[in-house]
Amino acid sequence: MQEGKYYSIRMRAAKNGPHEQGGKHISGGELLSTYSNMKHAVNALLEKGLTHSRGNPDFMQIQFESIDEPIKLVKPLQIATNEVESVDEGQSFARRLLEREGIPRTSIEKAYQLMTEYSGIRGAILIDIHSGERIDERKEKGLRVSRMDWLDTNFEKWADYFKMPKNSRVKEALVLATKVNEHPATVAELCWSDDPEYITGYVASKKLGYQRITKLKEYGDEHGCRIFFVDGLSDLHSYIHYLEKQPIFIQWEEENDTRVN
Amino acid sequence: MQEGKYYSIRMRAAKNGPHEQGGKHISGGELLSTYSNMKHAVNALLEKGLTHSRGNPDFMQIQFESIDEPIKLVKPLQIATNEVESVDEGQSFARRLLEREGIPRTSIEKAYQLMTEYSGIRGAILIDIHSGERIDERKEKGLRVSRMDWLDTNFEKWADYFKMPKNSRVKEALVLATKVNEHPATVAELCWSDDPEYITGYVASKKLGYQRITKLKEYGDEHGCRIFFVDGLSDLHSYIHYLEKQPIFIQWEEENDTRVN
Repeated sequence: MQEGKYYSIRMRAAKNGPHEQGGKHISGGELLSTYSNMKHAVNALLEKGLTHSRGNPDFMQIQFESIDEPIKLVKPLQIATNEVESVDEGQSFARRLLEREGIPRTSIEKAYQLMTEYSGIRGAILIDIHSGERIDERKEKGLRVSRMDWLDTNFEKWADYFKMPKNSRVKEALVLATKVNEHPATVAELCWSDDPEYITGYVASKKLGYQRITKLKEYGDEHGCRIFFVDGLSDLHSYIHYLEKQPIFIQWEEENDTRVN
Repeated sequence: MQEGKYYSIRMRAAKNGPHEQGGKHISGGELLSTYSNMKHAVNALLEKGLTHSRGNPDFMQIQFESIDEPIKLVKPLQIATNEVESVDEGQSFARRLLEREGIPRTSIEKAYQLMTEYSGIRGAILIDIHSGERIDERKEKGLRVSRMDWLDTNFEKWADYFKMPKNSRVKEALVLATKVNEHPATVAELCWSDDPEYITGYVASKKLGYQRITKLKEYGDEHGCRIFFVDGLSDLHSYIHYLEKQPIFIQWEEENDTRVN
């Protein structure tokens, strides 16, 4: 898998103009591909952007660039699904999971205030667990995790094993959560989609794994959330560099059963 | 044809990094498309960039954006092919055509000096016919003419009529030359490709039409040239805006025979 050269392919789509001119974010995506598989990869992202439930974009940019750094192989986070009856129940459960990771309750409260303020943002925001303050300085853009993927053949084996749907939604989210939580400074991630038709979200961390929560927002709501709770971040620059530039392939092996018991 | 919304799609590909980081220009392309035909258009540009004789790119960007301005319909320039035996003969002929358009010989000589200086540039350079000086201020990037196309069905009728090959090379060049020369301030264009396998170039103007010259460089030479000779340019900004932003469809009608007799 690591032989030959790989390319990072990124897509972003917006409506009413490009993001940088105030357009509404519609869709984004990240893939890694070989040169020979490039058409397939570009078309997968093109299709994703053209057919998003947030609307038809009138701006899209697809870009590929070669990766010079060696690609790191990382096992996917353990996965579990938590059924809840209501958004309130889901959000309470999410907060309890974050507290269990040692994030002070005051910082969690601050994070929830911040996410209202930054609800239109397309990237992630970084929050320091001690102060509860946002520390990424990426303003309206937020931070975009990039250069990560999971080869379909391996993902499908994983999905078969865990009886998960083989759609790209869970795949993409688990790839991102795994990359983010692989870094020592990440304490936990809290996320739900800006797709109005998708209300399941998750809390992820090294210890808890990828904890899906079946209702974190109301159906039809276009506000998403992606917060990385970080600790001991002496070098913010290198942390952001890791998220944006370190290429990672998720790779699962059946021998290492990753179910949460 | 003008009903419904159109989108401008652009591609640029480079090797050894993006253009803006000093990468070598490999390929570029421009199309107009409806939303429903977007996949076809994106794939046409993707294919062009991935399989260019200048090499395999390690960077590519494909972008589409909606066009709000009305699309202007313009007839293609008259076309003629001039067979020459050598580069010298071809270049002498090109200079004579430029002189015939009233460009002073000293300005033509200056232009040839400038093109050596700017041979690595990927866009066009603008030269004032009176001073012979470059006036576009676009430095190493040059000027990129955009937002123009020719619907395949109409192009193929034209190609059948004039017994021209139906490849995209002549189509793209004639589309560009027609758009550029449609503007009153353009006196003439001089162009040959940076594709090492393509040695035919042209001089184009309103009166002369699109004069192909079968040998303007040696086979294997990767240096291209695209110069717009301009006169009376009181408003450089609006001229450049026309080249970059005014959407144009080439449209040929058999009734108006455009052969050079």
